[in-house]
Amino acid sequence: MAGPSFKFGQHVLQASCVFFKSRLSIGFVNRKPVVPGHVLVSPLRVVERFGELSSEEVADLFMATQTISGVVEKHFQGTSLTMAIQDGPEAGQTVKHVHVHILPRRSGDFPQNDEVYEALAKHDKEMGEDARWRTEEEMAEEASVLAKYFNCQVDSS
Amino acid sequence: MAGPSFKFGQHVLQASCVFFKSRLSIGFVNRKPVVPGHVLVSPLRVVERFGELSSEEVADLFMATQTISGVVEKHFQGTSLTMAIQDGPEAGQTVKHVHVHILPRRSGDFPQNDEVYEALAKHDKEMGEDARWRTEEEMAEEASVLAKYFNCQVDSS
Repeated sequence: MAGPSFKFGQHVLQASCVFFKSRLSIGFVNRKPVVPGHVLVSPLRVVERFGELSSEEVADLFMATQTISGVVEKHFQGTSLTMAIQDGPEAGQTVKHVHVHILPRRSGDFPQNDEVYEALAKHDKEMGEDARWRTEEEMAEEASVLAKYFNCQVDSS
Repeated sequence: MAGPSFKFGQHVLQASCVFFKSRLSIGFVNRKPVVPGHVLVSPLRVVERFGELSSEEVADLFMATQTISGVVEKHFQGTSLTMAIQDGPEAGQTVKHVHVHILPRRSGDFPQNDEVYEALAKHDKEMGEDARWRTEEEMAEEASVLAKYFNCQVDSS
Protein backbone atom coordinates (compact mmCIF):
# COMPACT_ATOMS: atom_id res chain seq x y z
CA MET A 1 0.00 0.00 0.00
CA ALA A 2 1.44 3.33 -1.06
CA GLY A 3 0.38 6.94 -0.84
CA PRO A 4 0.26 9.13 2.20
CA SER A 5 -3.35 9.73 3.11
CA PHE A 6 -7.02 10.16 2.26
CA LYS A 7 -9.45 12.77 3.49
CA PHE A 8 -12.18 11.56 5.81
CA GLY A 9 -14.21 14.67 6.53
CA GLN A 10 -12.21 16.84 8.88
CA HIS A 11 -9.76 13.98 9.49
CA VAL A 12 -6.73 12.65 7.66
CA LEU A 13 -6.82 8.92 7.10
CA GLN A 14 -3.50 7.14 6.67
CA ALA A 15 -3.41 5.00 3.54
CA SER A 16 -2.21 2.13 5.72
CA CYS A 17 -5.72 1.92 7.25
CA VAL A 18 -7.39 1.61 3.87
CA PHE A 19 -7.91 -1.98 2.69
CA PHE A 20 -10.21 -1.46 -0.28
CA LYS A 21 -10.43 1.05 -3.08
CA SER A 22 -12.86 1.19 -5.96
CA ARG A 23 -13.21 3.96 -8.50
CA LEU A 24 -15.24 6.20 -6.19
CA SER A 25 -15.08 4.65 -2.72
CA ILE A 26 -12.71 3.38 -0.03
CA GLY A 27 -13.04 0.84 2.77
CA PHE A 28 -11.01 1.32 5.94
CA VAL A 29 -10.59 0.02 9.47
CA ASN A 30 -11.52 2.24 12.35
CA ARG A 31 -9.89 3.44 15.51
CA LYS A 32 -12.50 2.19 17.91
CA PRO A 33 -14.41 -0.78 16.53
CA VAL A 34 -17.61 -1.72 18.35
CA VAL A 35 -17.18 -5.37 17.38
CA PRO A 36 -14.23 -7.13 15.72
CA GLY A 37 -14.38 -6.33 12.03
CA HIS A 38 -16.34 -3.09 12.39
CA VAL A 39 -15.17 -1.19 9.31
CA LEU A 40 -16.26 1.89 7.36
CA VAL A 41 -16.92 2.59 3.69
CA SER A 42 -16.91 6.13 2.27
CA PRO A 43 -17.06 7.89 -1.04
CA LEU A 44 -13.63 9.23 -2.02
CA ARG A 45 -15.11 12.68 -2.49
CA VAL A 46 -15.66 14.58 0.76
CA VAL A 47 -19.44 14.89 0.87
CA GLU A 48 -21.26 15.56 4.11
CA ARG A 49 -24.76 14.30 3.44
CA PHE A 50 -26.00 11.18 1.64
CA GLY A 51 -28.34 13.24 -0.55
CA GLU A 52 -25.37 15.10 -2.07
CA LEU A 53 -23.85 11.97 -3.62
CA SER A 54 -24.18 11.45 -7.37
CA SER A 55 -25.98 8.33 -8.61
CA GLU A 56 -22.63 6.91 -9.64
CA GLU A 57 -21.23 7.48 -6.17
CA VAL A 58 -24.27 5.88 -4.53
CA ALA A 59 -23.99 2.79 -6.74
CA ASP A 60 -20.24 2.49 -6.21
CA LEU A 61 -20.51 3.03 -2.45
CA PHE A 62 -23.04 0.25 -1.93
CA MET A 63 -21.41 -2.19 -4.31
CA ALA A 64 -18.27 -1.57 -2.24
CA THR A 65 -20.37 -2.07 0.91
CA GLN A 66 -21.68 -5.37 -0.42
CA THR A 67 -18.21 -6.64 -1.37
CA ILE A 68 -16.63 -5.57 1.90
CA SER A 69 -19.46 -6.81 4.09
CA GLY A 70 -19.16 -10.30 2.59
CA VAL A 71 -15.45 -10.33 3.38
CA VAL A 72 -15.66 -9.04 6.96
CA GLU A 73 -18.55 -11.36 7.78
CA LYS A 74 -16.45 -14.31 6.58
CA HIS A 75 -13.12 -13.17 8.01
CA PHE A 76 -14.52 -12.33 11.45
CA GLN A 77 -16.74 -15.40 11.48
CA GLY A 78 -20.00 -13.48 11.69
CA THR A 79 -23.38 -14.90 10.79
CA SER A 80 -25.17 -11.58 10.19
CA LEU A 81 -24.35 -7.94 9.51
CA THR A 82 -25.46 -4.62 10.92
CA MET A 83 -25.12 -1.76 8.44
CA ALA A 84 -25.90 1.83 9.36
CA ILE A 85 -25.52 5.38 8.14
CA GLN A 86 -25.75 8.33 10.50
CA ASP A 87 -26.66 11.04 8.03
CA GLY A 88 -26.54 14.41 9.76
CA PRO A 89 -25.87 15.58 13.32
CA GLU A 90 -29.32 14.64 14.66
CA ALA A 91 -28.60 11.06 13.56
CA GLY A 92 -25.32 11.02 15.50
CA GLN A 93 -22.99 11.85 12.61
CA THR A 94 -19.72 13.26 13.91
CA VAL A 95 -17.41 13.00 10.87
CA LYS A 96 -18.69 15.28 8.13
CA HIS A 97 -18.23 12.76 5.37
CA VAL A 98 -20.80 10.13 4.34
CA HIS A 99 -19.81 6.72 5.73
CA VAL A 100 -21.44 3.33 6.03
CA HIS A 101 -20.74 1.35 9.21
CA ILE A 102 -20.41 -2.40 8.60
CA LEU A 103 -20.45 -4.66 11.66
CA PRO A 104 -20.18 -8.44 11.48
CA ARG A 105 -22.59 -9.90 14.02
CA ARG A 106 -22.85 -13.22 15.75
CA SER A 107 -25.04 -14.80 18.35
CA GLY A 108 -24.26 -13.48 21.84
CA ASP A 109 -21.96 -10.66 20.74
CA PHE A 110 -24.11 -8.36 22.87
CA PRO A 111 -26.34 -9.43 25.78
CA GLN A 112 -29.22 -7.83 23.90
CA ASN A 113 -29.00 -7.78 20.12
CA ASP A 114 -29.80 -4.08 19.86
CA GLU A 115 -27.09 -2.95 22.29
CA VAL A 116 -24.85 -2.81 19.25
CA TYR A 117 -26.47 0.49 18.36
CA GLU A 118 -25.86 2.04 21.73
CA ALA A 119 -22.22 1.04 21.39
CA LEU A 120 -22.18 2.40 17.85
CA ALA A 121 -23.56 5.75 18.94
CA LYS A 122 -20.84 6.07 21.56
CA HIS A 123 -17.95 4.54 19.68
CA ASP A 124 -16.34 7.65 18.27
CA LYS A 125 -16.78 9.86 21.27
CA GLU A 126 -13.60 10.49 23.20
CA MET A 127 -14.59 10.17 26.79
CA GLY A 128 -14.38 7.96 29.81
CA GLU A 129 -11.96 5.25 30.66
CA ASP A 130 -13.04 2.88 27.94
CA ALA A 131 -12.00 5.34 25.26
CA ARG A 132 -8.96 3.39 24.15
CA TRP A 133 -8.34 4.18 20.52
CA ARG A 134 -6.24 1.75 18.55
CA THR A 135 -2.79 2.73 17.38
CA GLU A 136 -2.02 3.24 13.72
CA GLU A 137 0.11 0.10 13.82
CA GLU A 138 -2.79 -2.01 15.04
CA MET A 139 -5.04 -0.54 12.39
CA ALA A 140 -2.48 -1.00 9.61
CA GLU A 141 -2.08 -4.64 10.58
CA GLU A 142 -5.80 -5.31 10.34
CA ALA A 143 -6.08 -3.41 7.06
CA SER A 144 -3.22 -5.39 5.62
CA VAL A 145 -4.92 -8.69 6.45
CA LEU A 146 -8.21 -7.53 4.93
CA ALA A 147 -6.57 -6.07 1.83
CA LYS A 148 -5.49 -9.58 0.82
CA TYR A 149 -9.11 -10.46 0.10
CA PHE A 150 -9.36 -7.75 -2.52
CA ASN A 151 -7.68 -7.62 -5.83
CA CYS A 152 -6.90 -3.95 -5.58
CA GLN A 153 -3.95 -1.74 -5.01
CA VAL A 154 -4.64 0.97 -2.47
CA ASP A 155 -2.98 4.30 -2.93
CA SER A 156 -4.26 7.81 -2.42
CA SER A 157 -4.24 8.83 -6.07
CA MET B 1 -52.44 2.93 -7.16
CA ALA B 2 -53.51 -0.36 -8.66
CA GLY B 3 -52.50 -3.98 -8.25
CA PRO B 4 -53.23 -6.19 -5.31
CA SER B 5 -49.99 -6.82 -3.47
CA PHE B 6 -46.23 -7.26 -3.31
CA LYS B 7 -44.22 -9.89 -1.51
CA PHE B 8 -42.22 -8.73 1.48
CA GLY B 9 -40.45 -11.84 2.67
CA GLN B 10 -43.00 -14.05 4.35
CA HIS B 11 -45.54 -11.21 4.32
CA VAL B 12 -47.96 -9.83 1.76
CA LEU B 13 -47.74 -6.09 1.31
CA GLN B 14 -50.82 -4.28 0.03
CA ALA B 15 -50.05 -2.10 -2.98
CA SER B 16 -51.80 0.75 -1.16
CA CYS B 17 -48.87 0.91 1.26
CA VAL B 18 -46.32 1.26 -1.53
CA PHE B 19 -45.52 4.87 -2.47
CA PHE B 20 -42.48 4.39 -4.70
CA LYS B 21 -41.51 1.93 -7.38
CA SER B 22 -38.39 1.83 -9.50
CA ARG B 23 -37.36 -0.90 -11.89
CA LEU B 24 -36.03 -3.18 -9.15
CA SER B 25 -37.13 -1.67 -5.83
CA ILE B 26 -40.14 -0.46 -3.86
CA GLY B 27 -40.59 2.03 -1.04
CA PHE B 28 -43.41 1.52 1.46
CA VAL B 29 -44.76 2.75 4.75
CA ASN B 30 -44.64 0.48 7.74
CA ARG B 31 -47.07 -0.76 10.32
CA LYS B 32 -45.21 0.44 13.36
CA PRO B 33 -43.01 3.43 12.62
CA VAL B 34 -40.43 4.31 15.25
CA VAL B 35 -40.59 7.99 14.26
CA PRO B 36 -42.98 9.79 11.89
CA GLY B 37 -41.84 9.04 8.36
CA HIS B 38 -40.04 5.78 9.19
CA VAL B 39 -40.32 3.95 5.87
CA LEU B 40 -38.74 0.91 4.24
CA VAL B 41 -37.10 0.25 0.87
CA SER B 42 -36.72 -3.25 -0.56
CA PRO B 43 -35.66 -4.95 -3.73
CA LEU B 44 -38.70 -6.26 -5.62
CA ARG B 45 -37.15 -9.71 -5.73
CA VAL B 46 -37.50 -11.67 -2.50
CA VAL B 47 -33.88 -11.99 -1.36
CA GLU B 48 -33.02 -12.73 2.24
CA ARG B 49 -29.47 -11.45 2.56
CA PHE B 50 -27.78 -8.31 1.22
CA GLY B 51 -24.94 -10.35 -0.28
CA GLU B 52 -27.37 -12.17 -2.58
CA LEU B 53 -28.42 -9.01 -4.44
CA SER B 54 -27.09 -8.43 -7.95
CA SER B 55 -25.03 -5.28 -8.59
CA GLU B 56 -27.98 -3.84 -10.47
CA GLU B 57 -30.27 -4.48 -7.52
CA VAL B 58 -27.78 -2.90 -5.10
CA ALA B 59 -27.46 0.22 -7.24
CA ASP B 60 -31.21 0.52 -7.75
CA LEU B 61 -31.98 -0.08 -4.06
CA PHE B 62 -29.69 2.68 -2.83
CA MET B 63 -30.61 5.16 -5.52
CA ALA B 64 -34.20 4.54 -4.39
CA THR B 65 -33.04 4.97 -0.78
CA GLN B 66 -31.42 8.29 -1.66
CA THR B 67 -34.50 9.58 -3.49
CA ILE B 68 -36.91 8.46 -0.78
CA SER B 69 -34.78 9.67 2.11
CA GLY B 70 -34.67 13.17 0.64
CA VAL B 71 -38.46 13.20 0.39
CA VAL B 72 -39.23 11.86 3.87
CA GLU B 73 -36.67 14.15 5.49
CA LYS B 74 -38.37 17.10 3.81
CA HIS B 75 -41.96 15.97 4.26
CA PHE B 76 -41.56 15.07 7.93
CA GLN B 77 -39.41 18.13 8.61
CA GLY B 78 -36.35 16.20 9.68
CA THR B 79 -32.84 17.62 9.75
CA SER B 80 -30.96 14.31 9.60
CA LEU B 81 -31.56 10.68 8.66
CA THR B 82 -30.86 7.34 10.26
CA MET B 83 -30.52 4.51 7.74
CA ALA B 84 -30.00 0.91 8.79
CA ILE B 85 -30.02 -2.63 7.45
CA GLN B 86 -30.45 -5.61 9.73
CA ASP B 87 -28.89 -8.29 7.57
CA GLY B 88 -29.47 -11.68 9.14
CA PRO B 89 -31.07 -12.91 12.37
CA GLU B 90 -28.13 -11.98 14.61
CA ALA B 91 -28.53 -8.40 13.42
CA GLY B 92 -32.21 -8.37 14.38
CA GLN B 93 -33.67 -9.17 10.94
CA THR B 94 -37.17 -10.58 11.29
CA VAL B 95 -38.57 -10.27 7.76
CA LYS B 96 -36.58 -12.50 5.42
CA HIS B 97 -36.28 -9.92 2.68
CA VAL B 98 -33.53 -7.28 2.43
CA HIS B 99 -34.87 -3.91 3.55
CA VAL B 100 -33.39 -0.52 4.34
CA HIS B 101 -34.92 1.41 7.24
CA ILE B 102 -35.10 5.15 6.62
CA LEU B 103 -35.88 7.37 9.61
CA PRO B 104 -36.11 11.15 9.43
CA ARG B 105 -34.48 12.57 12.56
CA ARG B 106 -34.70 15.87 14.35
CA SER B 107 -33.32 17.38 17.49
CA GLY B 108 -35.01 16.02 20.60
CA ASP B 109 -36.92 13.21 18.87
CA PHE B 110 -35.43 10.87 21.46
CA PRO B 111 -34.09 11.86 24.89
CA GLN B 112 -30.79 10.31 23.84
CA ASN B 113 -29.97 10.33 20.14
CA ASP B 114 -29.12 6.63 20.05
CA GLU B 115 -32.38 5.47 21.63
CA VAL B 116 -33.71 5.38 18.09
CA TYR B 117 -31.89 2.09 17.63
CA GLU B 118 -33.41 0.48 20.67
CA ALA B 119 -36.82 1.49 19.37
CA LEU B 120 -35.88 0.20 15.93
CA ALA B 121 -34.86 -3.16 17.30
CA LYS B 122 -38.19 -3.52 19.07
CA HIS B 123 -40.46 -1.96 16.51
CA ASP B 124 -41.64 -5.03 14.68
CA LYS B 125 -42.01 -7.30 17.67
CA GLU B 126 -45.59 -7.95 18.64
CA MET B 127 -45.62 -7.69 22.38
CA GLY B 128 -46.66 -5.51 25.25
CA GLU B 129 -49.28 -2.87 25.43
CA ASP B 130 -47.51 -0.43 23.18
CA ALA B 131 -47.74 -2.84 20.27
CA ARG B 132 -50.33 -0.84 18.37
CA TRP B 133 -49.94 -1.57 14.72
CA ARG B 134 -51.42 0.89 12.28
CA THR B 135 -54.42 -0.06 10.20
CA GLU B 136 -54.17 -0.51 6.46
CA GLU B 137 -56.26 2.62 6.03
CA GLU B 138 -53.81 4.71 8.03
CA MET B 139 -50.92 3.29 6.05
CA ALA B 140 -52.62 3.79 2.70
CA GLU B 141 -53.28 7.41 3.58
CA GLU B 142 -49.63 8.09 4.37
CA ALA B 143 -48.47 6.23 1.26
CA SER B 144 -50.84 8.25 -0.87
CA VAL B 145 -49.41 11.53 0.45
CA LEU B 146 -45.83 10.40 -0.14
CA ALA B 147 -46.57 8.98 -3.60
CA LYS B 148 -47.34 12.51 -4.80
CA TYR B 149 -43.67 13.39 -4.49
CA PHE B 150 -42.70 10.72 -6.98
CA ASN B 151 -43.40 10.65 -10.64
CA CYS B 152 -44.21 6.97 -10.66
CA GLN B 153 -47.24 4.77 -10.95
CA VAL B 154 -47.24 2.02 -8.36
CA ASP B 155 -48.72 -1.31 -9.29
CA SER B 156 -47.61 -4.80 -8.52
CA SER B 157 -46.61 -5.78 -12.04
